[in-house]
Amino acid sequence: MSRAVVLLSGGLDSATTAAVARSEGFELYAISFDYGQRHTRELESAKLVATSIGVKDHLIISFDLRAMGGSALTDDINVPLDRKTENMAETIPITYVPARNTIFLSFALGYAETLKAYDIFIGVSEVDYSGYPDCRIEYIEAFERMANLATKAGIEGTGRFRIRTPLIDLSKADAIRRGLKLGLDYSLTWSCYMGDKKPCGRCDSCKLRLAAFAEVGIDDPLEYM
Amino acid sequence: MSRAVVLLSGGLDSATTAAVARSEGFELYAISFDYGQRHTRELESAKLVATSIGVKDHLIISFDLRAMGGSALTDDINVPLDRKTENMAETIPITYVPARNTIFLSFALGYAETLKAYDIFIGVSEVDYSGYPDCRIEYIEAFERMANLATKAGIEGTGRFRIRTPLIDLSKADAIRRGLKLGLDYSLTWSCYMGDKKPCGRCDSCKLRLAAFAEVGIDDPLEYM
Repeated sequence: MSRAVVLLSGGLDSATTAAVARSEGFELYAISFDYGQRHTRELESAKLVATSIGVKDHLIISFDLRAMGGSALTDDINVPLDRKTENMAETIPITYVPARNTIFLSFALGYAETLKAYDIFIGVSEVDYSGYPDCRIEYIEAFERMANLATKAGIEGTGRFRIRTPLIDLSKADAIRRGLKLGLDYSLTWSCYMGDKKPCGRCDSCKLRLAAFAEVGIDDPLEYM
Repeated sequence: MSRAVVLLSGGLDSATTAAVARSEGFELYAISFDYGQRHTRELESAKLVATSIGVKDHLIISFDLRAMGGSALTDDINVPLDRKTENMAETIPITYVPARNTIFLSFALGYAETLKAYDIFIGVSEVDYSGYPDCRIEYIEAFERMANLATKAGIEGTGRFRIRTPLIDLSKADAIRRGLKLGLDYSLTWSCYMGDKKPCGRCDSCKLRLAAFAEVGIDDPLEYM
Protein backbone atom coordinates (compact mmCIF):
# COMPACT_ATOMS: atom_id res chain seq x y z
CA MET A 1 0.00 0.00 0.00
CA SER A 2 1.60 3.28 -1.07
CA ARG A 3 1.80 6.07 1.43
CA ALA A 4 0.76 9.68 0.87
CA VAL A 5 0.97 12.82 2.98
CA VAL A 6 -2.02 15.13 2.99
CA LEU A 7 -2.05 18.71 4.27
CA LEU A 8 -5.12 18.93 6.46
CA SER A 9 -6.24 22.33 7.69
CA GLY A 10 -9.67 21.17 8.78
CA GLY A 11 -11.26 23.23 6.01
CA LEU A 12 -13.56 22.10 3.25
CA ASP A 13 -10.90 21.89 0.54
CA SER A 14 -8.28 19.91 2.44
CA ALA A 15 -10.92 17.50 3.80
CA THR A 16 -12.17 16.89 0.24
CA THR A 17 -8.57 16.40 -0.91
CA ALA A 18 -7.99 13.84 1.84
CA ALA A 19 -11.13 11.98 0.77
CA VAL A 20 -9.91 11.93 -2.84
CA ALA A 21 -6.47 10.65 -1.75
CA ARG A 22 -8.08 7.89 0.30
CA SER A 23 -10.27 6.91 -2.69
CA GLU A 24 -7.05 6.38 -4.68
CA GLY A 25 -6.02 3.70 -2.18
CA PHE A 26 -3.19 5.45 -0.33
CA GLU A 27 -2.26 4.86 3.28
CA LEU A 28 -2.67 8.44 4.50
CA TYR A 29 -0.50 10.53 6.82
CA ALA A 30 -2.06 13.88 7.67
CA ILE A 31 -0.09 16.97 8.66
CA SER A 32 -1.58 20.09 10.25
CA PHE A 33 -0.13 23.31 11.59
CA ASP A 34 -0.71 25.28 14.74
CA TYR A 35 0.94 28.50 13.58
CA GLY A 36 -0.69 31.20 15.64
CA GLN A 37 -3.76 31.49 13.44
CA ARG A 38 -6.72 33.17 15.16
CA HIS A 39 -8.86 30.26 14.01
CA THR A 40 -7.12 27.43 15.91
CA ARG A 41 -10.63 25.99 16.03
CA GLU A 42 -9.81 24.52 12.61
CA LEU A 43 -7.31 22.12 14.23
CA GLU A 44 -10.14 20.42 16.12
CA SER A 45 -11.84 19.94 12.78
CA ALA A 46 -8.61 18.62 11.27
CA LYS A 47 -8.49 15.95 13.99
CA LEU A 48 -12.14 14.99 13.41
CA VAL A 49 -11.63 14.78 9.66
CA ALA A 50 -8.43 12.74 10.08
CA THR A 51 -10.25 10.22 12.30
CA SER A 52 -13.25 10.08 10.00
CA ILE A 53 -11.09 9.52 6.89
CA GLY A 54 -9.03 6.89 8.73
CA VAL A 55 -5.50 8.26 8.47
CA LYS A 56 -2.59 6.13 9.68
CA ASP A 57 -1.05 9.04 11.60
CA HIS A 58 -1.68 12.75 12.12
CA LEU A 59 1.28 15.03 12.77
CA ILE A 60 0.59 18.51 14.16
CA ILE A 61 3.53 20.89 13.87
CA SER A 62 3.54 23.99 16.07
CA PHE A 63 5.35 27.26 15.43
CA ASP A 64 4.48 30.89 15.77
CA LEU A 65 4.07 32.99 12.65
CA ARG A 66 2.75 35.88 14.77
CA ALA A 67 6.37 36.83 15.42
CA MET A 68 6.62 37.67 11.72
CA GLY A 69 3.38 39.58 11.38
CA GLY A 70 2.05 40.75 8.05
CA SER A 71 -1.33 38.98 7.96
CA ALA A 72 -4.84 39.44 9.31
CA LEU A 73 -4.86 35.73 10.17
CA THR A 74 -2.00 36.00 12.65
CA ASP A 75 -1.79 39.69 13.48
CA ASP A 76 -3.90 42.33 15.19
CA ILE A 77 -5.24 43.35 11.79
CA ASN A 78 -9.01 43.05 11.28
CA VAL A 79 -10.21 40.25 9.03
CA PRO A 80 -12.29 41.89 6.27
CA LEU A 81 -16.00 41.09 6.50
CA ASP A 82 -18.96 41.23 4.14
CA ARG A 83 -16.98 41.41 0.90
CA LYS A 84 -18.71 40.28 -2.25
CA THR A 85 -17.35 36.92 -3.48
CA GLU A 86 -17.00 38.19 -7.06
CA ASN A 87 -14.50 40.84 -5.92
CA MET A 88 -12.33 38.56 -3.81
CA ALA A 89 -9.97 37.31 -6.53
CA GLU A 90 -9.09 40.78 -7.81
CA THR A 91 -6.42 41.56 -5.25
CA ILE A 92 -4.41 39.54 -2.76
CA PRO A 93 -6.30 39.92 0.51
CA ILE A 94 -4.89 40.96 3.89
CA THR A 95 -5.59 37.42 5.08
CA TYR A 96 -2.67 36.30 2.88
CA VAL A 97 0.04 34.87 5.15
CA PRO A 98 3.51 35.38 3.63
CA ALA A 99 4.96 32.08 2.38
CA ARG A 100 2.39 30.02 4.28
CA ASN A 101 1.83 27.25 1.75
CA THR A 102 5.59 27.14 1.12
CA ILE A 103 6.25 26.61 4.83
CA PHE A 104 3.46 24.01 5.03
CA LEU A 105 4.62 22.12 1.94
CA SER A 106 8.23 22.16 3.19
CA PHE A 107 7.26 20.41 6.41
CA ALA A 108 5.09 18.00 4.39
CA LEU A 109 8.11 17.27 2.20
CA GLY A 110 10.30 16.45 5.19
CA TYR A 111 7.54 14.25 6.65
CA ALA A 112 7.05 12.53 3.29
CA GLU A 113 10.75 11.84 2.88
CA THR A 114 11.03 10.17 6.28
CA LEU A 115 7.92 8.07 5.47
CA LYS A 116 9.05 7.21 1.92
CA ALA A 117 5.77 8.73 0.75
CA TYR A 118 6.10 10.36 -2.64
CA ASP A 119 2.62 11.79 -3.12
CA ILE A 120 1.86 14.99 -1.21
CA PHE A 121 -1.75 16.15 -1.45
CA ILE A 122 -2.76 19.79 -1.03
CA GLY A 123 -6.24 21.23 -1.52
CA VAL A 124 -5.48 24.31 -3.61
CA SER A 125 -7.77 25.43 -6.41
CA GLU A 126 -7.22 27.95 -9.16
CA VAL A 127 -10.96 28.42 -9.65
CA ASP A 128 -12.10 29.91 -6.34
CA TYR A 129 -8.59 30.63 -5.20
CA SER A 130 -9.42 33.82 -3.37
CA GLY A 131 -6.40 35.72 -4.66
CA TYR A 132 -3.56 33.79 -3.00
CA PRO A 133 -0.40 33.45 -5.13
CA ASP A 134 0.56 30.14 -3.51
CA CYS A 135 -2.60 28.41 -4.73
CA ARG A 136 -1.69 28.51 -8.43
CA ILE A 137 -0.50 25.52 -10.48
CA GLU A 138 2.57 27.42 -11.68
CA TYR A 139 3.67 27.79 -8.07
CA ILE A 140 2.91 24.14 -7.26
CA GLU A 141 4.95 22.94 -10.23
CA ALA A 142 7.90 25.11 -9.17
CA PHE A 143 7.67 23.71 -5.64
CA GLU A 144 7.63 20.14 -6.96
CA ARG A 145 10.71 20.76 -9.08
CA MET A 146 12.54 22.30 -6.13
CA ALA A 147 11.46 19.43 -3.85
CA ASN A 148 13.11 16.85 -6.06
CA LEU A 149 16.38 18.78 -5.96
CA ALA A 150 16.17 19.34 -2.20
CA THR A 151 15.92 15.79 -1.01
CA LYS A 152 18.00 12.67 -0.71
CA ALA A 153 15.24 10.61 -2.35
CA GLY A 154 14.96 13.15 -5.18
CA ILE A 155 18.64 13.28 -6.08
CA GLU A 156 19.39 9.62 -5.46
CA GLY A 157 16.43 8.69 -7.65
CA THR A 158 14.87 6.39 -5.05
CA GLY A 159 11.59 8.29 -5.32
CA ARG A 160 10.14 11.26 -7.15
CA PHE A 161 7.92 13.57 -5.14
CA ARG A 162 4.66 14.66 -6.71
CA ILE A 163 2.60 17.52 -5.35
CA ARG A 164 -0.96 16.35 -5.97
CA THR A 165 -3.72 18.94 -6.39
CA PRO A 166 -6.96 17.09 -7.18
CA LEU A 167 -9.05 20.24 -6.68
CA ILE A 168 -6.95 22.53 -8.87
CA ASP A 169 -9.57 22.79 -11.63
CA LEU A 170 -12.64 22.45 -9.45
CA SER A 171 -14.88 25.22 -8.20
CA LYS A 172 -15.70 24.97 -4.51
CA ALA A 173 -19.18 23.75 -5.47
CA ASP A 174 -17.65 20.97 -7.59
CA ALA A 175 -15.31 20.09 -4.72
CA ILE A 176 -18.34 19.68 -2.44
CA ARG A 177 -20.08 17.49 -5.03
CA ARG A 178 -16.95 15.34 -5.25
CA GLY A 179 -16.65 15.06 -1.47
CA LEU A 180 -20.32 14.15 -1.03
CA LYS A 181 -19.95 11.31 -3.56
CA LEU A 182 -17.00 10.05 -1.51
CA GLY A 183 -19.11 10.12 1.66
CA LEU A 184 -17.33 13.05 3.29
CA ASP A 185 -19.18 14.56 6.25
CA TYR A 186 -18.82 18.34 5.86
CA SER A 187 -20.22 18.94 9.33
CA LEU A 188 -16.74 17.99 10.57
CA THR A 189 -15.00 20.77 8.61
CA TRP A 190 -14.31 24.38 9.53
CA SER A 191 -13.67 27.30 7.18
CA CYS A 192 -14.20 30.49 9.21
CA TYR A 193 -11.22 32.82 9.67
CA MET A 194 -12.55 34.17 12.96
CA GLY A 195 -11.81 32.36 16.22
CA ASP A 196 -15.37 32.06 17.52
CA LYS A 197 -17.42 29.04 18.52
CA LYS A 198 -19.65 29.27 15.47
CA PRO A 199 -18.59 30.40 12.00
CA CYS A 200 -19.26 34.10 11.37
CA GLY A 201 -20.73 33.79 7.89
CA ARG A 202 -19.14 37.12 6.97
CA CYS A 203 -15.41 36.59 6.31
CA ASP A 204 -14.19 35.71 2.80
CA SER A 205 -13.81 32.06 3.70
CA CYS A 206 -17.38 31.73 5.07
CA LYS A 207 -18.77 33.68 2.12
CA LEU A 208 -17.08 31.42 -0.44
CA ARG A 209 -18.22 28.33 1.44
CA LEU A 210 -21.83 29.48 1.74
CA ALA A 211 -21.95 30.48 -1.93
CA ALA A 212 -20.63 27.03 -2.88
CA PHE A 213 -23.22 25.16 -0.82
CA ALA A 214 -25.93 27.40 -2.31
CA GLU A 215 -24.67 26.55 -5.81
CA VAL A 216 -24.80 22.82 -5.02
CA GLY A 217 -28.31 23.37 -3.73
CA ILE A 218 -27.92 21.91 -0.26
CA ASP A 219 -27.64 23.42 3.19
CA ASP A 220 -24.23 23.84 4.78
CA PRO A 221 -24.39 21.44 7.77
CA LEU A 222 -22.64 24.03 10.01
CA GLU A 223 -24.68 26.33 12.21
CA TYR A 224 -23.67 29.95 11.69
CA MET A 225 -23.75 32.84 14.16
CA MET B 1 19.37 51.20 3.47
CA SER B 2 18.20 47.94 1.91
CA ARG B 3 17.22 45.13 4.18
CA ALA B 4 18.37 41.53 3.96
CA VAL B 5 17.48 38.38 5.86
CA VAL B 6 20.31 36.06 6.85
CA LEU B 7 19.93 32.48 8.04
CA LEU B 8 22.12 32.23 11.10
CA SER B 9 22.78 28.81 12.62
CA GLY B 10 25.66 29.97 14.77
CA GLY B 11 28.07 27.95 12.66
CA LEU B 12 31.15 29.07 10.82
CA ASP B 13 29.52 29.31 7.39
CA SER B 14 26.44 31.28 8.35
CA ALA B 15 28.47 33.68 10.49
CA THR B 16 30.81 34.31 7.55
CA THR B 17 27.80 34.81 5.30
CA ALA B 18 26.35 37.36 7.72
CA ALA B 19 29.67 39.23 7.75
CA VAL B 20 29.68 39.31 3.93
CA ALA B 21 26.08 40.58 3.86
CA ARG B 22 26.93 43.32 6.34
CA SER B 23 29.96 44.30 4.24
CA GLU B 24 27.59 44.86 1.31
CA GLY B 25 25.77 47.51 3.36
CA PHE B 26 22.51 45.75 4.16
CA GLU B 27 20.44 46.31 7.26
CA LEU B 28 20.44 42.73 8.53
CA TYR B 29 17.64 40.64 9.99
CA ALA B 30 18.82 37.28 11.29
CA ILE B 31 16.64 34.19 11.55
CA SER B 32 17.54 31.06 13.51
CA PHE B 33 15.74 27.83 14.28
CA ASP B 34 15.27 25.83 17.43
CA TYR B 35 14.09 22.61 15.74
CA GLY B 36 14.96 19.91 18.23
CA GLN B 37 18.59 19.61 17.16
CA ARG B 38 20.83 17.91 19.72
CA HIS B 39 23.23 20.83 19.38
CA THR B 40 20.97 23.65 20.62
CA ARG B 41 24.22 25.09 21.90
CA GLU B 42 24.56 26.60 18.41
CA LEU B 43 21.67 28.98 19.15
CA GLU B 44 23.73 30.66 21.87
CA SER B 45 26.43 31.17 19.26
CA ALA B 46 23.87 32.51 16.80
CA LYS B 47 22.87 35.16 19.36
CA LEU B 48 26.48 36.12 20.01
CA VAL B 49 27.23 36.36 16.29
CA ALA B 50 24.06 38.40 15.66
CA THR B 51 25.05 40.89 18.36
CA SER B 52 28.63 41.04 17.18
CA ILE B 53 27.61 41.62 13.54
CA GLY B 54 25.07 44.24 14.62
CA VAL B 55 21.82 42.88 13.22
CA LYS B 56 18.65 44.99 13.43
CA ASP B 57 16.58 42.09 14.71
CA HIS B 58 17.00 38.38 15.36
CA LEU B 59 14.01 36.09 15.01
CA ILE B 60 14.20 32.60 16.51
CA ILE B 61 11.53 30.23 15.26
CA SER B 62 10.82 27.11 17.31
CA PHE B 63 9.31 23.86 16.08
CA ASP B 64 10.03 20.22 16.66
CA LEU B 65 11.44 18.12 13.84
CA ARG B 66 12.00 15.24 16.25
CA ALA B 67 8.36 14.28 15.67
CA MET B 68 9.34 13.47 12.09
CA GLY B 69 12.54 11.56 12.80
CA GLY B 70 14.88 10.38 10.11
CA SER B 71 18.09 12.18 11.13
CA ALA B 72 20.97 11.70 13.56
CA LEU B 73 20.71 15.41 14.40
CA THR B 74 17.19 15.12 15.79
CA ASP B 75 16.74 11.41 16.50
CA ASP B 76 18.20 8.78 18.79
CA ILE B 77 20.58 7.80 16.02
CA ASN B 78 24.30 8.07 16.76
CA VAL B 79 26.16 10.90 15.06
CA PRO B 80 29.03 9.27 13.12
CA LEU B 81 32.45 10.07 14.56
CA ASP B 82 36.03 9.94 13.29
CA ARG B 83 35.19 9.79 9.56
CA LYS B 84 37.85 10.93 7.15
CA THR B 85 36.98 14.29 5.58
CA GLU B 86 37.82 13.05 2.08
CA ASN B 87 35.09 10.39 2.31
CA MET B 88 32.34 12.65 3.63
CA ALA B 89 30.98 13.92 0.30
CA GLU B 90 30.58 10.45 -1.21
CA THR B 91 27.22 9.69 0.32
CA ILE B 92 24.51 11.71 2.01
CA PRO B 93 25.24 11.30 5.73
CA ILE B 94 22.81 10.23 8.45
CA THR B 95 23.04 13.78 9.82
CA TYR B 96 21.00 14.90 6.78
CA VAL B 97 17.69 16.32 8.06
CA PRO B 98 14.92 15.82 5.49
CA ALA B 99 13.94 19.13 3.85
CA ARG B 100 15.74 21.18 6.50
CA ASN B 101 17.08 23.96 4.31
CA THR B 102 13.75 24.08 2.49
CA ILE B 103 11.92 24.58 5.78
CA PHE B 104 14.48 27.19 6.91
CA LEU B 105 14.38 29.10 3.62
CA SER B 106 10.58 29.04 3.61
CA PHE B 107 10.45 30.78 6.99
CA ALA B 108 13.14 33.20 5.81
CA LEU B 109 11.01 33.94 2.75
CA GLY B 110 7.96 34.76 4.85
CA TYR B 111 10.07 36.94 7.16
CA ALA B 112 11.65 38.68 4.17
CA GLU B 113 8.30 39.38 2.58
CA THR B 114 6.91 41.03 5.70
CA LEU B 115 10.11 43.13 5.97
CA LYS B 116 10.19 44.01 2.27
CA ALA B 117 13.67 42.50 2.23
CA TYR B 118 14.49 40.88 -1.10
CA ASP B 119 17.93 39.45 -0.42
CA ILE B 120 18.03 36.24 1.60
CA PHE B 121 21.52 35.06 2.54
CA ILE B 122 22.33 31.43 3.25
CA GLY B 123 25.78 30.00 3.92
CA VAL B 124 25.74 26.94 1.67
CA SER B 125 28.82 25.83 -0.24
CA GLU B 126 29.23 23.31 -3.03
CA VAL B 127 32.91 22.84 -2.29
CA ASP B 128 32.91 21.38 1.21
CA TYR B 129 29.23 20.64 1.19
CA SER B 130 29.45 17.41 3.12
CA GLY B 131 27.00 15.56 0.89
CA TYR B 132 23.76 17.45 1.56
CA PRO B 133 21.48 17.79 -1.49
CA ASP B 134 20.03 21.09 -0.26
CA CYS B 135 23.41 22.84 -0.36
CA ARG B 136 23.75 22.78 -4.17
CA ILE B 137 23.30 25.77 -6.46
CA GLU B 138 20.80 23.88 -8.62
CA TYR B 139 18.57 23.50 -5.58
CA ILE B 140 19.03 27.12 -4.53
CA GLU B 141 18.05 28.37 -8.00
CA ALA B 142 14.93 26.19 -7.98
CA PHE B 143 14.00 27.56 -4.56
CA GLU B 144 14.45 31.14 -5.77
CA ARG B 145 12.24 30.54 -8.78
CA MET B 146 9.55 28.98 -6.60
CA ALA B 147 9.82 31.83 -4.08
CA ASN B 148 8.98 34.43 -6.68
CA LEU B 149 5.86 32.51 -7.68
CA ALA B 150 4.82 31.91 -4.07
CA THR B 151 4.68 35.45 -2.83
CA LYS B 152 2.62 38.59 -3.21
CA ALA B 153 5.77 40.65 -3.85
CA GLY B 154 6.93 38.12 -6.44
CA ILE B 155 3.76 37.99 -8.51
CA GLU B 156 2.84 41.67 -8.15
CA GLY B 157 6.37 42.58 -9.21
CA THR B 158 7.00 44.87 -6.24
CA GLY B 159 10.17 42.96 -5.43
CA ARG B 160 12.14 40.02 -6.71
CA PHE B 161 13.58 37.69 -4.09
CA ARG B 162 17.18 36.61 -4.51
CA ILE B 163 18.68 33.72 -2.57
CA ARG B 164 22.25 34.89 -1.99
CA THR B 165 25.00 32.31 -1.51
CA PRO B 166 28.33 34.16 -1.17
CA LEU B 167 30.13 30.99 -0.03
CA ILE B 168 28.87 28.72 -2.81
CA ASP B 169 32.26 28.50 -4.58
CA LEU B 170 34.44 28.82 -1.49
CA SER B 171 36.15 26.05 0.38
CA LYS B 172 35.74 26.27 4.14
CA ALA B 173 39.33 27.50 4.37
CA ASP B 174 38.55 30.29 1.90
CA ALA B 175 35.42 31.14 3.86
CA ILE B 176 37.53 31.52 7.01
CA ARG B 177 40.02 33.73 5.14
CA ARG B 178 37.12 35.89 3.93
CA GLY B 179 35.60 36.15 7.41
CA LEU B 180 38.92 37.04 9.02
CA LYS B 181 39.38 39.89 6.53
CA LEU B 182 35.95 41.16 7.53
CA GLY B 183 36.91 41.05 11.21
CA LEU B 184 34.71 38.12 12.15
CA ASP B 185 35.46 36.58 15.54
CA TYR B 186 35.28 32.82 15.02
CA SER B 187 35.48 32.17 18.75
CA LEU B 188 31.77 33.12 18.80
CA THR B 189 30.77 30.38 16.35
CA TRP B 190 29.83 26.77 16.97
CA SER B 191 30.01 23.85 14.53
CA CYS B 192 29.85 20.65 16.59
CA TYR B 193 26.87 18.32 16.04
CA MET B 194 27.08 16.94 19.57
CA GLY B 195 25.34 18.70 22.43
CA ASP B 196 28.27 19.01 24.81
CA LYS B 197 29.87 22.03 26.46
CA LYS B 198 32.97 21.81 24.31
CA PRO B 199 33.11 20.71 20.67
CA CYS B 200 33.93 17.01 20.25
CA GLY B 201 36.45 17.37 17.44
CA ARG B 202 35.27 14.03 16.05
CA CYS B 203 31.95 14.57 14.21
CA ASP B 204 31.94 15.47 10.49
CA SER B 205 31.28 19.11 11.25
CA CYS B 206 34.19 19.43 13.70
CA LYS B 207 36.48 17.48 11.35
CA LEU B 208 35.72 19.78 8.41
CA ARG B 209 36.18 22.86 10.58
CA LEU B 210 39.49 21.71 12.03
CA ALA B 211 40.80 20.73 8.59
CA ALA B 212 39.87 24.19 7.29
CA PHE B 213 41.64 26.05 10.10
CA ALA B 214 44.69 23.81 9.55
CA GLU B 215 44.63 24.68 5.85
CA VAL B 216 44.50 28.40 6.66
CA GLY B 217 47.38 27.83 9.03
CA ILE B 218 45.88 29.29 12.19
CA ASP B 219 44.50 27.73 15.34
CA ASP B 220 40.74 27.33 15.73
CA PRO B 221 39.92 29.69 18.63
CA LEU B 222 37.55 27.10 20.16
CA GLU B 223 38.76 24.79 22.86
CA TYR B 224 38.00 21.16 22.03
CA MET B 225 37.27 18.25 24.36
